[in-house]
Amino acid sequence: MASAPSALAQLHRHLHQTRLLGSISSTLYYDQNTVMPAAGAAWRGEQLALLASQLHERQSSAAYAELVASAEAELGPDTPPLRRRNLQLLRLELERQRCLDPDLVSALARAQSRGNAVWQDARSRNDFAAFAPALQELISLRRQQASQLAAAEPVARSPWEVLAQPFEPDVSKARLEQLFAPLKAELPALLEQAETAVAPASEPTAGVPEALQEQLCAELLESWGYNAERCQRSRSAHPFSCTVGPQDFRITTRVVPGQPLSAFLATAHEWGHSLYEQGLPRGDDHWFPWPLGEATSMGVHESQSLFWECRVARSRAFAERWHARFSAGLGSDPWGGTLGFWRALNPLRPGLIRVEADELSYCLHIVLRYELELALLEQDLPVEELPQQWNRRMGELLGLIPSTDRDGCLQDIHWAEGLFGYFPSYALGHLISAQISETLEQSLGPIEALIAAGDEASLRAWLSQTVWPLGRSVNGEQLVERVTGRPLSAEPFLAYLRAKVSGLDWS
Amino acid sequence: MASAPSALAQLHRHLHQTRLLGSISSTLYYDQNTVMPAAGAAWRGEQLALLASQLHERQSSAAYAELVASAEAELGPDTPPLRRRNLQLLRLELERQRCLDPDLVSALARAQSRGNAVWQDARSRNDFAAFAPALQELISLRRQQASQLAAAEPVARSPWEVLAQPFEPDVSKARLEQLFAPLKAELPALLEQAETAVAPASEPTAGVPEALQEQLCAELLESWGYNAERCQRSRSAHPFSCTVGPQDFRITTRVVPGQPLSAFLATAHEWGHSLYEQGLPRGDDHWFPWPLGEATSMGVHESQSLFWECRVARSRAFAERWHARFSAGLGSDPWGGTLGFWRALNPLRPGLIRVEADELSYCLHIVLRYELELALLEQDLPVEELPQQWNRRMGELLGLIPSTDRDGCLQDIHWAEGLFGYFPSYALGHLISAQISETLEQSLGPIEALIAAGDEASLRAWLSQTVWPLGRSVNGEQLVERVTGRPLSAEPFLAYLRAKVSGLDWS
Repeated sequence: MASAPSALAQLHRHLHQTRLLGSISSTLYYDQNTVMPAAGAAWRGEQLALLASQLHERQSSAAYAELVASAEAELGPDTPPLRRRNLQLLRLELERQRCLDPDLVSALARAQSRGNAVWQDARSRNDFAAFAPALQELISLRRQQASQLAAAEPVARSPWEVLAQPFEPDVSKARLEQLFAPLKAELPALLEQAETAVAPASEPTAGVPEALQEQLCAELLESWGYNAERCQRSRSAHPFSCTVGPQDFRITTRVVPGQPLSAFLATAHEWGHSLYEQGLPRGDDHWFPWPLGEATSMGVHESQSLFWECRVARSRAFAERWHARFSAGLGSDPWGGTLGFWRALNPLRPGLIRVEADELSYCLHIVLRYELELALLEQDLPVEELPQQWNRRMGELLGLIPSTDRDGCLQDIHWAEGLFGYFPSYALGHLISAQISETLEQSLGPIEALIAAGDEASLRAWLSQTVWPLGRSVNGEQLVERVTGRPLSAEPFLAYLRAKVSGLDWS
Repeated sequence: MASAPSALAQLHRHLHQTRLLGSISSTLYYDQNTVMPAAGAAWRGEQLALLASQLHERQSSAAYAELVASAEAELGPDTPPLRRRNLQLLRLELERQRCLDPDLVSALARAQSRGNAVWQDARSRNDFAAFAPALQELISLRRQQASQLAAAEPVARSPWEVLAQPFEPDVSKARLEQLFAPLKAELPALLEQAETAVAPASEPTAGVPEALQEQLCAELLESWGYNAERCQRSRSAHPFSCTVGPQDFRITTRVVPGQPLSAFLATAHEWGHSLYEQGLPRGDDHWFPWPLGEATSMGVHESQSLFWECRVARSRAFAERWHARFSAGLGSDPWGGTLGFWRALNPLRPGLIRVEADELSYCLHIVLRYELELALLEQDLPVEELPQQWNRRMGELLGLIPSTDRDGCLQDIHWAEGLFGYFPSYALGHLISAQISETLEQSLGPIEALIAAGDEASLRAWLSQTVWPLGRSVNGEQLVERVTGRPLSAEPFLAYLRAKVSGLDWS
């Protein structure tokens, strides 16, 4: 007589199907942002809402709760810790899902899809007023969500903290303020020092033709292990990376007029995300549907993209190697040598746009957004005042005031999709990347030397053995401590920036 | 006290959600054939199988059956005939779905997805043996499906006829043989006449660069009402058209090396499909989820694509207008004048590839496939013998024998997705297009004259008033009789071809 499948096996089947549904959503999202015509937005919103409500149902149903409880009942003293961890993460997520009103779940999915479409249009027309009602609705729905979710949290959390949990498990405002304080204290001075050290590089007047940008992006990916059998690169308004199946990884970039290196750096960035996803513990797909097969936090995710964008692609050794390829493709050298090319990769001066920002100003963009999110969600800042507040704080933090909302509070997609609590992960990514890089150098020697030797494969190999396989076995801060032996701090990042700035008179 | 929603309103909600799920499948299919990396196929197969089983469940559940029965119970003497028709079509489809074993439904979806992937690979390597097991499995599953479905048919039908019903409602082998007999009798002689009338046009040696082909395809669509707000054009291995939402229409084409006009003609063809879809009765999406909002048959669908490809894009007047644009783009005239260009659009000699075939040989390609399908499904032809049977029949019908299976039985995607019963619709499309064209000319005057005046908008307007709004209110043959006043016959098509061939000495 065949024995009944174990509770764990039944749970695995359930999670596998949940993951299928989730990845269908990801495919629709990818399509929406790469090829879907504008008039398709309303129907797409309904499709995504349907999937979201199916997902919510699967993740909160009594039948699923029973599967989890049965699997928990199978736990014993000999249970491997990773299995125990999987079940703990499922239990927390289950409690969260069960707090949510299904109507709110589908209302949110619809509002996100509508928000995306309204934002695309409002941004192209620089019309914040057209976007404001959609944003107001998203804030209101997210507040309701935070208040429903609060009951499931193991400790008391503010609404913003509740919303940030999915991106950065266990994050708190107090810890963020602790990590951000040294950045706010030191970055403005470093920016000033960089500006006085050398005159900003002159922009190439000719620009780099789109076809050449595309070709160099393809060559970059080729040299970093891109495999067309399981990867796909497309164009979208905002670069992103997404995983569509255990063997199906997508990234997108965009060519920005007047910013000839933007697509190249964005490709490095998104590929860093994708490498992490490709390296998560998924042996023969076994872990794909389980929490441990997932990225542990957006901060860690960003640390991987920023590592490839900043530590590698913006490094001097890398500039030396690629300057020749850009110049050869152009048939001229608008940067006037390798130093000029490196300076073009590292403007090191404040700008208006977060995704084009350099390493000195980037975290200040995040502080601005983080503080505005708190104001919108927890301090009753009226949505109508957002442009004015944005511009005032930009002036204070970076000494710049955007002349249009397109270059101000309309520049990012996140709020248009109701993503509050996400931005700080970008700054954490810089900190984590710097701290992990110190450890990597203790093991492999200077990163610059490896890049100079064209040996990025060693960097990839080290990360693939040390960081990526951890999955969600630890949270972001625990991962840093596991890999580097120390708690996360802003110091390695600031030390790296100090060295970068003090070395500006390179020749 | 608010009254409960009518059974019809509840049914509408149910169908709306069913259509959402179906259109999610279409989006995944589009993604799969345009950008998905090869290694994504297995997971995509699972996603599609999940959706297929959800769709089957929705379309065969007791709850849905009750909704249909309740809506039927609301029918009365005052019920509008179109509502009655909608319910009749739903009832027939319901009975069919309820005959099917859900396990078979998901097995078929998986086999279709696997078949597509195996075929892509086998075709690129010209390896029929690698494809044969997948084909054998699809045949076996389709036979099972036919035997399950037979119980729902209102009249006795053979397995092939049962499988052909979704594509061509009410079709029978006897009717097809009646329509195909005059084609088999006359087309070979017309082909011979065309070959002796003039020497084949010499192929342009230079070819048309890919970028120019893309540009001219875009201009063609532009001039035929393409609206980027609701349409999207991509590349795929096999051109297709698909509707992803009530306001979201996609077409794909491909550039074929050595066939400089292939992409242009395929664009005209797929756009014809899309125009029909865009013109179906869907006022404020009301009909989108209902049967009447759907295309009535693949034969009618093909009649619309073939109208724009053959009657318009291959016409002499059109060649006169576009010859100048092709030559200007090339900076030379490899066709040696307008006649040469028209001959290049109308090779009028047998070839190996169906999708590149001209109007004289096209239907013979279909007869071959139709007869082989009957052999595979109803006469126990072993799959292994397919290449040899294919080649023998090609020799008999068209006097050509493919040197590779890639140019023979591996050329089409249909069988790779288990689509049996579909091919005859292509031939019916030629017949329907010709018969409808006769009626259109009675109303608007000669098509050639309208094209010469650059007035394709009138053709579009006539079809949009006469043909497209009928939806599924009538079946394919009824549509022809409604529009033209006569039963469908092969005679208008043959008369059109006779005129085309006898006019070959045009100068």
